[in-house]
Amino acid sequence: MRESDLRERALPAGGGGALVYPPAVRLRDLGEFGLIARIERAVARSMRRSAGVVLGIGDDAAILRARAGEDLVVTIDALVEGVHFRFATQSPRAIGRRALVANLSDLAAMGARPLGCLLALAAPPSLPVRTLDAVLAGLLHEAGVHGCPLVGGNVARARQTSLSITAAGAVARGRALLRRGARAGDRILVTGSLGGAALEVARAERGVGRVRRVPTPRLAAGRALARLPGVGGCIDVSDGLEADLAHLLEPAGLAAELDPARVPRPPGFAAACRRLGLDPDRLALGGGEDYELLFTLRPGALATGRLARRLGVAVAEIGRVVRGGGPAGPTRGFRHF
Amino acid sequence: MRESDLRERALPAGGGGALVYPPAVRLRDLGEFGLIARIERAVARSMRRSAGVVLGIGDDAAILRARAGEDLVVTIDALVEGVHFRFATQSPRAIGRRALVANLSDLAAMGARPLGCLLALAAPPSLPVRTLDAVLAGLLHEAGVHGCPLVGGNVARARQTSLSITAAGAVARGRALLRRGARAGDRILVTGSLGGAALEVARAERGVGRVRRVPTPRLAAGRALARLPGVGGCIDVSDGLEADLAHLLEPAGLAAELDPARVPRPPGFAAACRRLGLDPDRLALGGGEDYELLFTLRPGALATGRLARRLGVAVAEIGRVVRGGGPAGPTRGFRHF
Repeated sequence: MRESDLRERALPAGGGGALVYPPAVRLRDLGEFGLIARIERAVARSMRRSAGVVLGIGDDAAILRARAGEDLVVTIDALVEGVHFRFATQSPRAIGRRALVANLSDLAAMGARPLGCLLALAAPPSLPVRTLDAVLAGLLHEAGVHGCPLVGGNVARARQTSLSITAAGAVARGRALLRRGARAGDRILVTGSLGGAALEVARAERGVGRVRRVPTPRLAAGRALARLPGVGGCIDVSDGLEADLAHLLEPAGLAAELDPARVPRPPGFAAACRRLGLDPDRLALGGGEDYELLFTLRPGALATGRLARRLGVAVAEIGRVVRGGGPAGPTRGFRHF
Repeated sequence: MRESDLRERALPAGGGGALVYPPAVRLRDLGEFGLIARIERAVARSMRRSAGVVLGIGDDAAILRARAGEDLVVTIDALVEGVHFRFATQSPRAIGRRALVANLSDLAAMGARPLGCLLALAAPPSLPVRTLDAVLAGLLHEAGVHGCPLVGGNVARARQTSLSITAAGAVARGRALLRRGARAGDRILVTGSLGGAALEVARAERGVGRVRRVPTPRLAAGRALARLPGVGGCIDVSDGLEADLAHLLEPAGLAAELDPARVPRPPGFAAACRRLGLDPDRLALGGGEDYELLFTLRPGALATGRLARRLGVAVAEIGRVVRGGGPAGPTRGFRHF
C-alpha cells in the first residue's frame, strides 16, 4: 500500500493538523518509506532550530557542531518491549519519553549539554501506527524540552518493538564528570529522590494503574557539577543506588558507608510501599531508573544547602566513601541475561 | 552463575590468550555484567590508541575529540536477525563485519573520517557465547582496519539478535558530501562494482555456500571526494542503485538517464547469474548492500581516469542527470514493513 492510499482512509484529527489513524492501521500499511516520511514530518513539526545541528534527518548521516574547545560525548541505550517496557502497563507516550530520558541522563552524568539524538526503531509490522505515533510524540517531547533534536535514525522490522537511541552532547575539554575519581573520605550525595520509579513499576505489575511518571534527566545539575571543584566520581542511578555506587567505588577498591534512612524518597513513599507489602528500603536502595545523579564530593567542598542551590535541585548527603574490603554484598539492580 | 565459575569450565585456546567456550555455553551463563566484561576485554585486546578517543568503554558515555574546524558526523544503523542476516547462511564473523561496514559506509558517503562507534547488542539468553564472540571479532576487525574503535555500548535481552551501531566521524566544516546538490547535466558515477552482494545472498538462499564476502567501506574515496570541486550529490549504495539514485535525484525533481550496460559488475558476474537463473541487470541495478559510493559530478570536472586515481578506487560513469518528469518507475531496493 502506498502512503497516499492510507491518507485517504485516515480520519482528520480535532486540531493541530495531525491525522488520527484507526487502531487497525498498522506499520505494514505505511511501508518503510511511508514510516520514515511519517517520522520526518513529526520531527519537522516538533523541532526548533538548534545551533548544534548543521544537518538533520534525510541524509546518510547527521552533522552536529560543538563549540570551540568542546569534546563530544556519545552514548547508546536500548529499550526492548517485554524487558524494559510493556505496552500493557505503560502508556506509549511515557515509553517514548523514558527512552530518550535514559540517554539524556547519561549526558547529564557526564556534565554534557545535548546536541542531538538518533533513533533506531525496530518493530513488528503489526504495530498500530497510533502506538508508534504516541511513542514518537513522547520522545520528541523530551527532545524539545531538553534541546536534543532527533537528527537521524533507522527503521527495521523485528518480532519485538525496541528503541535504540544514541544521544550526542558536548562538554568543555577536561571538564567531563567521570565515574572514576572518588576517594576515601569523600561525601556521597544524590539529587532528587530514589525508589519512585521502582514503586510505580511494582504498582503497575499489581494492576494499580499504568506507568506514566517520567523521571527528569538532571542536565542542568550535571552541567553545574562539571563546573564545580571538588567533585570525585559521578554516575546516574539507572541500575539502582547500590549497583551504581558499586560502579563508582569498586574499581578503585573503595566501598560506601551508607545510611539508608538518609536516602531521599518521594512524598508518601513509605505508606505506598506498606499498602503494597513492599520493603521501602529495598525499593529506594535497589530500584533503578530514577535517573538521579549520584556523586562524591571532597570533604571540604560545598555544604549541601549551597550545593543544592548551585545545582538547582534537592541534594541529600547519604554516606561516606571508605576503603573497600573485597566485593560488596549482593546488589539489587536489574541485570540482563 | 558468576563469571568466575564459567572460566573454570572454559577450554584454553591454542594461542592468543583467549578462551574458547564449548558451544553449549550461552549468554545466560555469562550474565549481563559478565557479557559486558567480555566485550570490554575483547575491545581492550583489539584496540589501538586513537587520537579521536578521549574516553572509551566503561563510563556513562564515551568522549570523542574532533580537530579544530571539524564538524561531527553521526549515523545509526541496525541489523536484525532473520531480516538483515541469518546465522544459518552467514558466518557470525561476517555478520559482525557487515554491521560496522554499513555504518562506516555512511561516514564515507559524507566524506567523514571515523572517530569511534557504539554498539547496542540485543540477543536471546540462549545465544551461544561462541557466536557472540565471532560477531564481535568481526566487528572489532573492521573497527581496527578503519580506525573506528568501539567506545561504548549497551546489552539487552531480546527474542531476536540485533546489532544497532552508531558511528561517529569528523569532517571539515562545510566540506561534507550531501545527498542534495545534483543538477541536470551532471555525470553519474559509481565506485567499484555492483550486484556482488545480492548475488552472494541469492547463492546462499539456494544453499550454495554462506555469505562471507564483506564490502569495503569507501572511506578514503569519500574523503578524497569531499576535497574535490565539482561534486554534486553523494550517497552510498545500500538500498540498491535505482533506489539510491532516487534518493539523490527525486527530491530535486531530477531523474537519471542510465546505461545499464555501463553499470560495473564483479568478475564472472554474468556467468554466475546465468547458472542460478538470475537476471544480472536486475541484481546489478536493484541489489543493495554493495556500499559503493554513488555520486554526481559537474560536466566539466575531472575525467573518469584521473578521478579514479584521486579516489584510489575504480570509478565508472554510468549515466547523466536529467530534469525529472514525475515519479520514476518502481525501485527494487529492499524495504521494511
